[in-house]
Amino acid sequence: MDNFTFCTPTRYTFGRGAEDKVGEIAASLGFRHPLIVYGQGSAVRSGLLDRVVKSLQDKDIECSRLGGVKPNPEDDLVIRGIEMCRENVEIDSLLAVGGGSVIDTAKAIAAGACYDGDFWDFFCGKAKVEKALPIGVVLTIPAAGSEGSGNSVITKREGQVKISIRTDYWLRPKFALLDPELTFTLPAYQSAAGIVDMMAHIMERYFSPTEDVEVTDRLSEGLLLAIINEAPKVIARPDDYQARANIMWSGTLAHNGICGCGRAEDWSSHALEHELSALYGVTHGAGLAVVFPAWMTYMADHRPQKIAQFARRVMGVDLADDRAAALEGISRLKAFFTSIGMPVTLAQLGVSDPDIPSLVTRLHAHKGDPLGVYLPLSPSATTAIYRLML
Amino acid sequence: MDNFTFCTPTRYTFGRGAEDKVGEIAASLGFRHPLIVYGQGSAVRSGLLDRVVKSLQDKDIECSRLGGVKPNPEDDLVIRGIEMCRENVEIDSLLAVGGGSVIDTAKAIAAGACYDGDFWDFFCGKAKVEKALPIGVVLTIPAAGSEGSGNSVITKREGQVKISIRTDYWLRPKFALLDPELTFTLPAYQSAAGIVDMMAHIMERYFSPTEDVEVTDRLSEGLLLAIINEAPKVIARPDDYQARANIMWSGTLAHNGICGCGRAEDWSSHALEHELSALYGVTHGAGLAVVFPAWMTYMADHRPQKIAQFARRVMGVDLADDRAAALEGISRLKAFFTSIGMPVTLAQLGVSDPDIPSLVTRLHAHKGDPLGVYLPLSPSATTAIYRLML
Repeated sequence: MDNFTFCTPTRYTFGRGAEDKVGEIAASLGFRHPLIVYGQGSAVRSGLLDRVVKSLQDKDIECSRLGGVKPNPEDDLVIRGIEMCRENVEIDSLLAVGGGSVIDTAKAIAAGACYDGDFWDFFCGKAKVEKALPIGVVLTIPAAGSEGSGNSVITKREGQVKISIRTDYWLRPKFALLDPELTFTLPAYQSAAGIVDMMAHIMERYFSPTEDVEVTDRLSEGLLLAIINEAPKVIARPDDYQARANIMWSGTLAHNGICGCGRAEDWSSHALEHELSALYGVTHGAGLAVVFPAWMTYMADHRPQKIAQFARRVMGVDLADDRAAALEGISRLKAFFTSIGMPVTLAQLGVSDPDIPSLVTRLHAHKGDPLGVYLPLSPSATTAIYRLML
Repeated sequence: MDNFTFCTPTRYTFGRGAEDKVGEIAASLGFRHPLIVYGQGSAVRSGLLDRVVKSLQDKDIECSRLGGVKPNPEDDLVIRGIEMCRENVEIDSLLAVGGGSVIDTAKAIAAGACYDGDFWDFFCGKAKVEKALPIGVVLTIPAAGSEGSGNSVITKREGQVKISIRTDYWLRPKFALLDPELTFTLPAYQSAAGIVDMMAHIMERYFSPTEDVEVTDRLSEGLLLAIINEAPKVIARPDDYQARANIMWSGTLAHNGICGCGRAEDWSSHALEHELSALYGVTHGAGLAVVFPAWMTYMADHRPQKIAQFARRVMGVDLADDRAAALEGISRLKAFFTSIGMPVTLAQLGVSDPDIPSLVTRLHAHKGDPLGVYLPLSPSATTAIYRLML
């Protein structure tokens, strides 16, 4: 187990009607005038945004609004949000009403509003976030885990560069309100993509070269077992409150850092997927359902031990040989993804003729060479992994 | 899953040499003059206290000192600490250097110093903690989990009443430094008692009447599996860093609340044990090793479902009938406790002739009737459970 620091200060309020407490909680934490960030209108159409504003007004909290955030959120809205914060000095906080893209946009605005230069400096490594406006969240999509993480992923439109940053403290929301009922209306495909995304957040941390991390391993396996148990219920019955609740809380724990304590994290599957999203506009979670089994299949031949542990402890495989166990576990994982309507090949993802050389070139240009830590990957390795997705 | 709120703001610094960062971290959080609380001298003899003071002095942080905290900490030292805070207005924080008893004493002082009345008001339910001095921790004994919890357990010497309080926020430490190397010198019996205590913290939450909490169940089972895997290594080789590290972090997660999210918690086994500690002065964790199997055995006859789930998922039992599975799981749990040197009967605990009527009368007088929530217990039920410990 490696040395680590860990702090998750977010105040979670979880359950039916949680969003109606937004005014009370925001007031108690000193929010006086948040900029509300939201997506492409579903929060408006459902009446959620009106309820949020009403709850704030009941506590004499003013607000400004910035809508229109899209999946794989881009820098243009971040820039607009930062301008709004600069133009209206009353704005003292951010309130994200939506899923990961909305929250990540709010986070980038929160950091950029406290920084004199271009906010992209944080994403390209030129500057470190050392201050940010406080952020609150009303979560509507369980997937990205951004409601509990210190991370933000933004795509720079120019060049379609998708970059993730992580802070220990500043970008962690001060509060997050999680009402599973808000997720009843999510389409099955989006629910399933979210489920893959949260599983991937755990697996990126689980497939680590660090040994003797039994406690973090077991926690990760427990979360994966819970997700695999609850996911089919969510797909079969979108208004199954208990299953939605289990999935929603799993999504938060998958990415708040608890599954990474004490070990190096890999994240090469996310990097492989980010290039697919950037070039082909695929849904992040669906892309991960294609990438992860391919990455694991490569590892079954090159470093099978942890893949075999996953197969035995999570997928119930009972085979003594590591490679055989790993391959059987991957086969069961693919069957699970298929069962919830996710693709497991690039063709199923809608990418029929992928430009693998281009993906590989961009990947290593953006994320370095070698990539990852479980088994560091050269361009020839990542080429092989993209080919395993065909 | 029930609605819940959850916030764990403690900043953890985990690993070799963590305690040497105490000055830096305390300074960054604004501690100017902590009252250092410690135990019966081991932190002095080992030189740890000197290193802590030196680290503070290096950051121009003054300190006062209050030593002598004993296991099952009593109110007298809390009162002395509160007096010290009142006499010296420079004291602005608490720094606990020790295990659960030391931390719980520091917490009670932190709350009492900000309260005009008798600090015991918080424990007997007359007042609620609404303010406290900030608390930091250098942990030396993994067991109580107080380094991450909002709880404190204090015994009132007059009448030997041992009471636990829980706060959502105020009594959670601002920071906790966890160095597994500091636990190398713990005697095997104390290590084992700590291991039982942390398992009990998980099990009190796990044996819940709330259904459909798969995510919290799986997390709890994962932690228990990790502890059961690592515990024998700690007993066999006290300086096994990796095993000590896994156990230390497990103890924090066992009690920071994550295993309780979304469900009612039982806590009747702790209540049953507190009376044993109060009347016979037994070690808390050793007492729990006797109490928990007895409580579970009673439940095998009256509400076996969750005991059977524990047996199957944690103890590896493969029996279809719930009662049979539960009993086999309890048998394996007892064998595990025995294997790490813990008692499983009152006689093994050194209580050869227990006054069960007196224990039962005190228990319900202090903790109410009925007791617990998994299956609420009347005095006849708790009498039966104490008899199962014989």
